[in-house]
Amino acid sequence: MLKFEVLHQSKKSTARVGRIHTPHGIIDTPNFVAVGTNGTIKALDSATVTEIGLQLMFCNTYHLLLQPGTKIIKEAGGLHDFINRKLPIITDSGGFQVFSLAYGSVADELKSRGTKNSGNLVQKINEEGVLFRSYRDGSKFLLTPETSIQAQKDLGADIIIPFDELPPYHIKEDSLKLSLARTHRWEKRSLDAHLKNRNDQAMYAVVHGGINLDMRKESCETLTKLDFDGYAIGGSMGKNKDEMYSILSHTLPLLPKEKPNHLLGIGDLDSIDAGIPLGIDTFDSSYPTRAARHGVALTWNGPLKLTQASCATTFSPIDKNCTCPTCKQCNLAYIHHLFKAKELSALSLATIHNLHFMVEYMADIREKITQDLI
Amino acid sequence: MLKFEVLHQSKKSTARVGRIHTPHGIIDTPNFVAVGTNGTIKALDSATVTEIGLQLMFCNTYHLLLQPGTKIIKEAGGLHDFINRKLPIITDSGGFQVFSLAYGSVADELKSRGTKNSGNLVQKINEEGVLFRSYRDGSKFLLTPETSIQAQKDLGADIIIPFDELPPYHIKEDSLKLSLARTHRWEKRSLDAHLKNRNDQAMYAVVHGGINLDMRKESCETLTKLDFDGYAIGGSMGKNKDEMYSILSHTLPLLPKEKPNHLLGIGDLDSIDAGIPLGIDTFDSSYPTRAARHGVALTWNGPLKLTQASCATTFSPIDKNCTCPTCKQCNLAYIHHLFKAKELSALSLATIHNLHFMVEYMADIREKITQDLI
Repeated sequence: MLKFEVLHQSKKSTARVGRIHTPHGIIDTPNFVAVGTNGTIKALDSATVTEIGLQLMFCNTYHLLLQPGTKIIKEAGGLHDFINRKLPIITDSGGFQVFSLAYGSVADELKSRGTKNSGNLVQKINEEGVLFRSYRDGSKFLLTPETSIQAQKDLGADIIIPFDELPPYHIKEDSLKLSLARTHRWEKRSLDAHLKNRNDQAMYAVVHGGINLDMRKESCETLTKLDFDGYAIGGSMGKNKDEMYSILSHTLPLLPKEKPNHLLGIGDLDSIDAGIPLGIDTFDSSYPTRAARHGVALTWNGPLKLTQASCATTFSPIDKNCTCPTCKQCNLAYIHHLFKAKELSALSLATIHNLHFMVEYMADIREKITQDLI
Repeated sequence: MLKFEVLHQSKKSTARVGRIHTPHGIIDTPNFVAVGTNGTIKALDSATVTEIGLQLMFCNTYHLLLQPGTKIIKEAGGLHDFINRKLPIITDSGGFQVFSLAYGSVADELKSRGTKNSGNLVQKINEEGVLFRSYRDGSKFLLTPETSIQAQKDLGADIIIPFDELPPYHIKEDSLKLSLARTHRWEKRSLDAHLKNRNDQAMYAVVHGGINLDMRKESCETLTKLDFDGYAIGGSMGKNKDEMYSILSHTLPLLPKEKPNHLLGIGDLDSIDAGIPLGIDTFDSSYPTRAARHGVALTWNGPLKLTQASCATTFSPIDKNCTCPTCKQCNLAYIHHLFKAKELSALSLATIHNLHFMVEYMADIREKITQDLI
């Protein structure tokens, strides 16, 4: 079972250093959670991800449901065995993706997946759940609180997420209110389904309410009355960092301090820097791995475009002080060349560096919190 | 300097087990040479390639000349430093590629590089060499025996190849004779350029003559009179395995036994099995790595299509007895899933297995020769 301990509460802010204990080991918090949509961090194998020190990996139930199907993964002994990961995994409910299909608010994760004609994939949305067709073969799937939780039971991640509705960004207050109420009913149904068979998994609620602070409050009050193990913050976080900051600074005090929280789908460095003093424990994002594949390396001096001309003759690593396998092996000139030559190894090498950077970045943040510098 | 020792001469055939000593270590023969066209085995980093045990890697001067340019690689300290490879490397002359551009005999290595409109890239072919334009940016390159050798000096591979002409497959005997004579003159010029500055590199001649056995003989006689360190067999090897077998069985006895030989660009398992009893020492081919990227795993029971439906629920490795990092980590079901989900890690995992398989396959062949079973 999940256990959370706060090791240090900063004297300077709401930031805290903690430790989440899961059946597959410890997650030091605050921490970054890399996204491995299809059960793999793109361009890396599990052994490399473990070597880098990534403690928690985020996998998408929607994608795994369609390919290879959660039954096959269950048959393999669950997601950990299937993908050969010994460390903790978190899965989402699939709600984010199916509502992105329905409302055309194209999720980052779907951007590159050729789902442009996805509008007609969602066939029915009602109180029961969402009926949609697979973009792969047209087969029908009914995603409800119960089927989402069953899928996540089959996957067997350490942390799972209740089925929720992702309302469109441009939504009227009345509609948002209805959506929020239904999301709460769905989360309760998800929790009930989960509690019938805990299976040594933890469940984080998802706080909704969009950019409406009253509804955020209502969501916190409703969900914290239920037996969730932690709290994720989802839904629209506004159009810019200021709005996000406003929502988070309003929402986080309403969550129980003794339970871990998670910011869903946001994990660029600016957002991490903004969220940490407010007390965010974990952040997931595909930003560092996607940036890597687009030739952008993260460094302590800001992002570095690996394809820029000056890299062609730079015979030193991305960062001289970096201890990642890429920087220990390769000069910038070589990585630049591999990108120019469109070699697959470029994508792996850059991903290794960026993921390692995130691991170091979060360790540095934890250290600073411990010293009350944040 | 290169040193070759024959450790065992089979009593059953012309096959032999040997050892090539290079400035970057030993190559056990017979051996398979993987192709890393742009200075990387596709989808793998140097550390992984070393871990797999690949003793010799083949890089293409033509590609490295155009991107990143041999001057940059020289500035980096040579190809070994540039790509971070501690083990031996062999480079070719670039001749194969430029003549493929000229004569439209599309080389395997070029197939996937979008050079369909390559006909007008070659501007002039004469006694001096070949003037061609870069498919990347249109800039002009003059490839001659002297410039090819200079490029290969800049790269600094352990074994280099003289500049030669690759005649078109459908060539009249008169034209082939003229081509052969010019190739011999070019190889002599290449050798002269090389000997002015050996730079601790070895040079293998390239035996030509196409499918004409008399010309093959003439080529052997001409080239063995010169101070080459080994002999590669190039040019057309016929339309099928029988023709190849006929050419090799005719050619190999004409080469000095005390020097290593190499079969250029051919390294599928059938050709290896055919070439070994004739005494071939090394084979290079992109077949195993390309097959991997197309979802075909090499096994002792023949090729296995990783995307076939039966793999979806096979919860055991590609080969239960295989000790490669992929088989130690992953079940077939997972690799199948990664291919179906179009994940980059599928390509790396399959490449690791196939390259490791080739290393094991050649070790097995050496063992059998030692026991006079081949």
